[in-house]
Amino acid sequence: MAETFIIGLDYGSESARGVLINTASGQQIASHTHAYRHGIMTQALPGGSPLPRGWALQNAADYIEAATEILSQLGDGREIEGIGLGFTASSPMPTTANGTPLSQLFAEDPHAYVKLWKHGAAQKYADDINAHGGSYLKNFGGKVSGEWLLAKAVQIAKEAPGTWDATDRFIESGDWLVWQLSGVESRSLGFAAYKAQYSEADGYPKDVLDGLEDRLSLPHPVGTCAGYLTDDWRLRTGIKGKAAIAVSVIDSHVVLPAVGAVDDGCLVGALGTSAAYLLLSEGFHPLPTGIEGVAYNGSMRDLWCYESGQASFGDMLAWFIKNFPRAATIDESFRLYNTEAAALVPGENRLVALDWWNGNRVPLADSRLSGIIMGLSMDTTAVGIYRALMESLCFGARSIVDLFEAGKIAVNRMLMTSGLAQNNPLLVQIMSDVMNRPIDVPEIANPTAVGAAIHGAVAGGVVSSYEEGAARFGAKSYAHFVPDENNVAIYETLYQLYREMSQSVRARASMHILSEMPAAEHHSTVTSQVQ
Amino acid sequence: MAETFIIGLDYGSESARGVLINTASGQQIASHTHAYRHGIMTQALPGGSPLPRGWALQNAADYIEAATEILSQLGDGREIEGIGLGFTASSPMPTTANGTPLSQLFAEDPHAYVKLWKHGAAQKYADDINAHGGSYLKNFGGKVSGEWLLAKAVQIAKEAPGTWDATDRFIESGDWLVWQLSGVESRSLGFAAYKAQYSEADGYPKDVLDGLEDRLSLPHPVGTCAGYLTDDWRLRTGIKGKAAIAVSVIDSHVVLPAVGAVDDGCLVGALGTSAAYLLLSEGFHPLPTGIEGVAYNGSMRDLWCYESGQASFGDMLAWFIKNFPRAATIDESFRLYNTEAAALVPGENRLVALDWWNGNRVPLADSRLSGIIMGLSMDTTAVGIYRALMESLCFGARSIVDLFEAGKIAVNRMLMTSGLAQNNPLLVQIMSDVMNRPIDVPEIANPTAVGAAIHGAVAGGVVSSYEEGAARFGAKSYAHFVPDENNVAIYETLYQLYREMSQSVRARASMHILSEMPAAEHHSTVTSQVQ
Repeated sequence: MAETFIIGLDYGSESARGVLINTASGQQIASHTHAYRHGIMTQALPGGSPLPRGWALQNAADYIEAATEILSQLGDGREIEGIGLGFTASSPMPTTANGTPLSQLFAEDPHAYVKLWKHGAAQKYADDINAHGGSYLKNFGGKVSGEWLLAKAVQIAKEAPGTWDATDRFIESGDWLVWQLSGVESRSLGFAAYKAQYSEADGYPKDVLDGLEDRLSLPHPVGTCAGYLTDDWRLRTGIKGKAAIAVSVIDSHVVLPAVGAVDDGCLVGALGTSAAYLLLSEGFHPLPTGIEGVAYNGSMRDLWCYESGQASFGDMLAWFIKNFPRAATIDESFRLYNTEAAALVPGENRLVALDWWNGNRVPLADSRLSGIIMGLSMDTTAVGIYRALMESLCFGARSIVDLFEAGKIAVNRMLMTSGLAQNNPLLVQIMSDVMNRPIDVPEIANPTAVGAAIHGAVAGGVVSSYEEGAARFGAKSYAHFVPDENNVAIYETLYQLYREMSQSVRARASMHILSEMPAAEHHSTVTSQVQ
Repeated sequence: MAETFIIGLDYGSESARGVLINTASGQQIASHTHAYRHGIMTQALPGGSPLPRGWALQNAADYIEAATEILSQLGDGREIEGIGLGFTASSPMPTTANGTPLSQLFAEDPHAYVKLWKHGAAQKYADDINAHGGSYLKNFGGKVSGEWLLAKAVQIAKEAPGTWDATDRFIESGDWLVWQLSGVESRSLGFAAYKAQYSEADGYPKDVLDGLEDRLSLPHPVGTCAGYLTDDWRLRTGIKGKAAIAVSVIDSHVVLPAVGAVDDGCLVGALGTSAAYLLLSEGFHPLPTGIEGVAYNGSMRDLWCYESGQASFGDMLAWFIKNFPRAATIDESFRLYNTEAAALVPGENRLVALDWWNGNRVPLADSRLSGIIMGLSMDTTAVGIYRALMESLCFGARSIVDLFEAGKIAVNRMLMTSGLAQNNPLLVQIMSDVMNRPIDVPEIANPTAVGAAIHGAVAGGVVSSYEEGAARFGAKSYAHFVPDENNVAIYETLYQLYREMSQSVRARASMHILSEMPAAEHHSTVTSQVQ
């Protein structure tokens, strides 16, 4: 019997990555990365037309080029059982009824292109939606983001009504790529629920924009087989076999089965520049105040998945290193600070910080808030401050876990992924001490692409469940951190001080005043004269 | 007619300095500095006997050596009209009835030496005094400091009763040196009032220590002529002329006439490592809560002088430079930070800090408090923080001025002296903007010694008043800083945020908890293992 494989595709902001996994051994055989030809377009269209400030577009043709390259490299001549993909979200595009991107027809129209997740120019339409918001906002804390599909649809309709008229389908790029690969428009419940506020009970929101629902289509739970790789793509890539195509998944969610997060109570934190937390739950609980969103069947099958996060995380430590370097390189400064911070005992720095360097995302959703360091003295050291920043990030994470628990949503296991979880064991140890819980850090290469491959395995029937997929293709080992009981009580005390700072209405009012200070218009002068 | 001169002596912690001034021209002719042979003794006596922790002693013989050297260098063969001196305080010593220091008789007894102002081992006796304190504390906020004479007297009586029995006179070193030079025990009202809680109405405190009053003697207003240089000293130094000796003055007060602070409403700030503020008032006003002390005739003649200060000042900026250097040398780092900070507009850093790096002295007298920085964001820069620290020092200074004004004690003119006032025009400009008042920085060399010389001129009848002394011998020019009206409103807003932070009872409680965090006893370990 011939060897068979699954492929996972991870479409990120700058490039796409694919992995090839042997279905029998579960081993990653190969991976391949392809950068998008046009990258993220913020200044101009491919033809040179300039873009307004705040725009961020992509070219759908780049996705096809990447898929052709990656699938050929990994799949040529191989028996592929299933293909899954994770994709940035919300990154929607307008197409014709047969899926032709409008950018292919109207190359000089900026509204014809993919509006990448970070496209910020639709925020005012989100504000309008929120001002008149309906019951479809109840699972999203009463508001949509300007990064989401609804606001981007309204932006096209208001700013380019002709383009909107020419739009038969308004579709997430991940769903569009599945359509291209399989020949079937089969949307993902993940994109629909989290980014277009679809629910199985009520469908898409009715009153946001006339004609919007006609341009969408009903979505399917994750793991659904959208169809099979088309003959055209088989010719183009040399792929053989069944090649079932799974519906697409939001990139930050697709990692879950790869790290073993497939059941009730799993909390997965992605500790990157910012931090994102996903919590899986079998039962539904109303969204706790401040938690950002929840949907069913959009991340893992038969589970609710709650979304939350911290606006600052690794970027706060990078801010410190950049402003207060200790060595010629960033890496060496990080190394020195981490080594010395690890030699401090909790509480020894006699500091407590509030981690709002980018404002607060959960629970206040207020970008005008800012950070605090308290306890500064002549004995305070740079490394003491650095450690206080790390600790404050962990306090911020704990305050999110506290919100979940206050909402009766159990957290049974904690998994931390991404750069800082991999590279900064001190940070994870502090988080374990602050949480007073064990934390697992999965040891696996290309976890996002592997997660996508597991979705492909489920869609292709290679495995009968995500649990089986996780066991066969996911992380095989974990770095295991356990709380140090000497530290738990001290961090409990410090966390209460953090809570007080974070709950001070007066401090927030002061931060608002600081955020509204006039920008520099003139330069102050020192006026001194001898009498 | 022969040229005549006055001499001022400035006895500091490490050395003494003298200046010679021509009475006709008012010019400084010469200056001379002499370091004390034994410096500050904190580890051991001259014979090698070790000292307990917290002790700080000096050897009276060093003062004589310095006076001999300086007066000879400046006065030999010259007609000296008057000599004045400023001295650290409280730095008392025990002597026999004829003024022989007990250290000359009992060289191995640590209690026989001068207890320098910073000697900290008498604090517990201050606590005892404060617990039973009487009405003599009313002009000192209800408490004495462990650095003051009363506590140091009790320390000797309790810890070395034999030494106390041998003590006929317990006397400030400044008063003792006047006694040596003039042959007359003529104490200063400044030392007696501020450091031994003497008042003209009630005398010295009665109930602090049996026999204390017998070892003191009645003090005299500043500017009083204690006597004339003895024949012995004339032989030793070559000094000719009248050589009236003024009663001694506290070193931080003696500067007043040299900078022109001789009348009602003058506020003089000494901006050094910490900051000290003296405010002169013709009328008496009850001590505002938090202001540290007030006395009459102890600093300037016929004026009340209120004492106040900030526990951190220049040391806070030095802390920043030391921990976050920008260049190979401290000086170059300061230069870079100051240059870049001067290019920022007020409010541009969007920060506000609380300057309690050494705790708060006025109005809370609480060393367990600590500093805060609020408003930190990804846009915050190192220089923005540096400027925020400067601004917080100025807010702290304003909060003291506000206390004076709330107590109906008018501030009519502001003078800033010492290192930072001379070297950091940006800081003085910010202070002017924060206060919304003009500030003068006197341009004069050796101001403390010049102030002492003016006291000598008053005592010797060279001038008929301090006003005349200041006009003839004091500062002739001032750097004049005026508030920039563009900045005043912004700093008013920021100052209100500072006030809120400083008044937060919750923040203080948090700082107390931080101050009580356990010191390092063990080193935390990162416990990670692969499952």
